[in-house]
Amino acid sequence: MSDASAVTVVGSVALDDLQLPSGDFQDVVGGAATFASLAASLFTAVRMVGVVGADFPEASLSDLERRGVDTSGVERTKGTTFKWVGKYAANLASRETLDTQLNVFADFRPTLPKTYREAGYLLLGNIHPSLQSDVLSQMQKPKFVAADTMNLWIDIERAALGKVLAAIDCLIINDEELRQLAGVHNIRQAAKIVRDLGPRILICKRGEYGALLFDDLGIAFVPAYPLETELDPTGAGDSFAGALVGRLAQLDRFDHTALRDALGYGTAVASFCVEGVGTDRLRSVTPTEVAERLAAVRALAS
Amino acid sequence: MSDASAVTVVGSVALDDLQLPSGDFQDVVGGAATFASLAASLFTAVRMVGVVGADFPEASLSDLERRGVDTSGVERTKGTTFKWVGKYAANLASRETLDTQLNVFADFRPTLPKTYREAGYLLLGNIHPSLQSDVLSQMQKPKFVAADTMNLWIDIERAALGKVLAAIDCLIINDEELRQLAGVHNIRQAAKIVRDLGPRILICKRGEYGALLFDDLGIAFVPAYPLETELDPTGAGDSFAGALVGRLAQLDRFDHTALRDALGYGTAVASFCVEGVGTDRLRSVTPTEVAERLAAVRALAS
Repeated sequence: MSDASAVTVVGSVALDDLQLPSGDFQDVVGGAATFASLAASLFTAVRMVGVVGADFPEASLSDLERRGVDTSGVERTKGTTFKWVGKYAANLASRETLDTQLNVFADFRPTLPKTYREAGYLLLGNIHPSLQSDVLSQMQKPKFVAADTMNLWIDIERAALGKVLAAIDCLIINDEELRQLAGVHNIRQAAKIVRDLGPRILICKRGEYGALLFDDLGIAFVPAYPLETELDPTGAGDSFAGALVGRLAQLDRFDHTALRDALGYGTAVASFCVEGVGTDRLRSVTPTEVAERLAAVRALAS
Repeated sequence: MSDASAVTVVGSVALDDLQLPSGDFQDVVGGAATFASLAASLFTAVRMVGVVGADFPEASLSDLERRGVDTSGVERTKGTTFKWVGKYAANLASRETLDTQLNVFADFRPTLPKTYREAGYLLLGNIHPSLQSDVLSQMQKPKFVAADTMNLWIDIERAALGKVLAAIDCLIINDEELRQLAGVHNIRQAAKIVRDLGPRILICKRGEYGALLFDDLGIAFVPAYPLETELDPTGAGDSFAGALVGRLAQLDRFDHTALRDALGYGTAVASFCVEGVGTDRLRSVTPTEVAERLAAVRALAS
């Protein structure tokens, strides 16, 4: 795949402990970069940036490689892989962070391989905004830069986050974080305020309700696919972002029409993520299944 | 308008006290029947059933009459009109019931005028399920019967509500109430359980997120219009239901295509309701404005 339509993805790589209604799961391979890379790899070549400890299963990296994800930019180091410990409510509608162990991410300063720097598309997955800026500064001339973030950075790293916002084309964020970042509750007003901070394109994730796109041409909406079986929402937002940017890279366009198209792929791929624990379902999903799910999402609102 | 495409609407008629972020408002004309009738009157002839006390402004009933709402089935009685006292959070996202005064509704037993009984469409607005059954039993042969309900009746009047569910074509309910009624959180599973209780058609209102339709042909979705100015969500759900049934009556069809069409009108009209306090905006909205808003709703997901 040419570098022009490749996506470089940075974010956490994790071994999560999940307390789900279906049971407790230890050392589940996860992290924003993992989910986003898997999702993006359904559409284009992916260069993944991150760091793992000695406890991370090499087989998982090999699996990513087989799916077209370049993991040469994933630093293998001594120490322990990043871990998120989370507990979900019985209905999966809310979750609680029990523990976050930065481990090898505490001192991670990525150095991007040359092919990574030449990619046309960049997804700055949810991670410390300074790390996002660091990765962005190493890119040669990306055509399209998208970023995700979370409430923690909005709370404690506003200045660093502001620097990221000023430098990106597209922010992908959930609705509560959008409201928090803007300081107003009304979604349209919040979108205007945040777009004034930098990103021309704002995509607001609304979980089981779908996603909204705000750009110069107005507002677009895509519903989420109502699932019959929901197992684990972990990584759904990262999968959404990965599929969205992967699809834009595949089209090598990011105009309003392309964004609407990619929004549909984002919700379709995210819905598969929720159907399995960790990356289980995302790793097995085929492009044909994605196309069928997308058709079902589109039929919902046709 | 012929009786075949007229809608009979029953529900509360109220003088509400509203504590809104924009200020406190006393004796605001409201109630499920009022909002639903106003909304339905944008599409077809409406026969409104309810009861008001001596304190209810006759001008409000005259206003309804001017909009094509027959209020001869609204009983004028001594005593005090039904009152709901509600307090909204600063962001309008949640509300608290401070007081509910049944007043003249406590002993209300409606007797439907002949023209009411001959209407082809019936909307049983949110009110005690026994009253809903009573009204339904007086109808001659309605082609299509829809009902709304609320958490209170699900809690304390499950048997009476069950009787209503068994007798209607369409239940219109919000997502939390749907989950409560079904006893499961997953929306698709909940929809299946509730449809097995009677209504072939289930419409799940999701507030600012839109609405889902479940019927024999599957699932459809319509987004809510993201408003820039939100003043008062009171009655938005009733306006949605009124517009939906009014539009079906106007089409005189209730197949899947007609339901999808009506779903769009429901969200369009409900969005106007939120733009004013009480019925303020709903009373002034024109069919042209509704058509424009509907086009905007449809463009969101096109």
